Amino acid sequence: MTSDPLKKSRAVVLLSGGMDSAVCATLAARDHDAAAVHVSYGQRTEQRERRAFDGICDRLKIRDRLVVRNDALRVIGGSALTDITIEVPTAASHFSSFPSSFPLSDIPVTYVPFRNAHFLSVAVSWAEVLGAQKVYIGAVEQDSSGYPDCRPAYYDAFNEVVKTGTKDGKIEIVTPLIKMRKAEIVRLGLELAAPFDLTWSCYTREDRACGECDSCILRMRAFREAGALDPIPYHINVAEGTA
Amino acid sequence: MTSDPLKKSRAVVLLSGGMDSAVCATLAARDHDAAAVHVSYGQRTEQRERRAFDGICDRLKIRDRLVVRNDALRVIGGSALTDITIEVPTAASHFSSFPSSFPLSDIPVTYVPFRNAHFLSVAVSWAEVLGAQKVYIGAVEQDSSGYPDCRPAYYDAFNEVVKTGTKDGKIEIVTPLIKMRKAEIVRLGLELAAPFDLTWSCYTREDRACGECDSCILRMRAFREAGALDPIPYHINVAEGTA
Repeated sequence: MTSDPLKKSRAVVLLSGGMDSAVCATLAARDHDAAAVHVSYGQRTEQRERRAFDGICDRLKIRDRLVVRNDALRVIGGSALTDITIEVPTAASHFSSFPSSFPLSDIPVTYVPFRNAHFLSVAVSWAEVLGAQKVYIGAVEQDSSGYPDCRPAYYDAFNEVVKTGTKDGKIEIVTPLIKMRKAEIVRLGLELAAPFDLTWSCYTREDRACGECDSCILRMRAFREAGALDPIPYHINVAEGTA
Repeated sequence: MTSDPLKKSRAVVLLSGGMDSAVCATLAARDHDAAAVHVSYGQRTEQRERRAFDGICDRLKIRDRLVVRNDALRVIGGSALTDITIEVPTAASHFSSFPSSFPLSDIPVTYVPFRNAHFLSVAVSWAEVLGAQKVYIGAVEQDSSGYPDCRPAYYDAFNEVVKTGTKDGKIEIVTPLIKMRKAEIVRLGLELAAPFDLTWSCYTREDRACGECDSCILRMRAFREAGALDPIPYHINVAEGTA
């Protein structure tokens, strides 16, 4: 975990292994001496996401990696991602409109209560110890699942927490993708040669993406709108929408 | 983890097992149907603090308890509390003046980087699932060790994060002790019959409090100033200051 003085300033990037975080990490690694953090929290596709994290770090040549386990989110539950008794929805009907203003009318059951605060806390603690002054997170407001902790106001508030609650108050959380449409993120990723082939977005399967959960549907639509081919394997025939 | 409809509204209280958190939990249990959360994070006196937590919950009749392990803080290190290669200071000299304004000039090595954000994240996630609208934390600004995450501005900012980053935005973090002097907290605790005998504050020992670390010194002084007897055993003769 030593910093290379010949290289750029340090940054910590939160890397789940999904397409947004992979593009975000590609940006962070381009502009900084990046260190990547991954949190396993008992989510259904934990193993697969961890593999995506390792692969993406290898490709982006990110040496400094922190993988931590968060037991609290699994024990607390309250989400279809961490509680196997709550079914992950597969119907696409609720994506006809995307919530983008507060209060949110329709937060899906895949929302993990206050999850991103856990992730940001780990990243900021590590940034303090590493001496990094930026924390990158690939949060996206529009075209996302409507989670409250993916909106600009949340990150503005969290930056105030970081300013008041750290040693020198100089760490900043940056959200380079937050205002982008998902198709724009695909295009940006292709420009940057982001490792889309190594990413994992599916909420339910670890072998081939289901193509039916909210996360798959948003991803498939983004690639389609960007006129690009999604390089990961799907369980269904994506072109025809059949298994 | 069911709510008793005949009782008061629900609240989650962060209970480390120290004197401040015990008084805070006593207040929470008096005014609410309280649920208590404890985070073990690889700190030196982890076992002893866990025992204090259990004892205090029993005494206060708090049934709903959540004990979680946080691996990130131990792995990240950067503090004398979580890294045994960093010595816990025993000299009292740096307590002649207490930092109370920002920027802080002298944050001690016992500061755990951005620790309280990890704890608050767990408490808020649990509050969302329980339907609790208050999260109690016994943070104290003055007479504390000068940690940045114990000041009112930090909690004001965190409340904005909670408002923007949760499902209905209605959970509030409350800090009933934050403006109190430590001796006042002792007096309040005595009035409320807070279980001081079950608390643990020492940073270094688990059998008898060392009487020499920052935390012991602040505690001993508080009881002395309140004209009260501290019921826990000390390794040194408190009256004479000798081992």
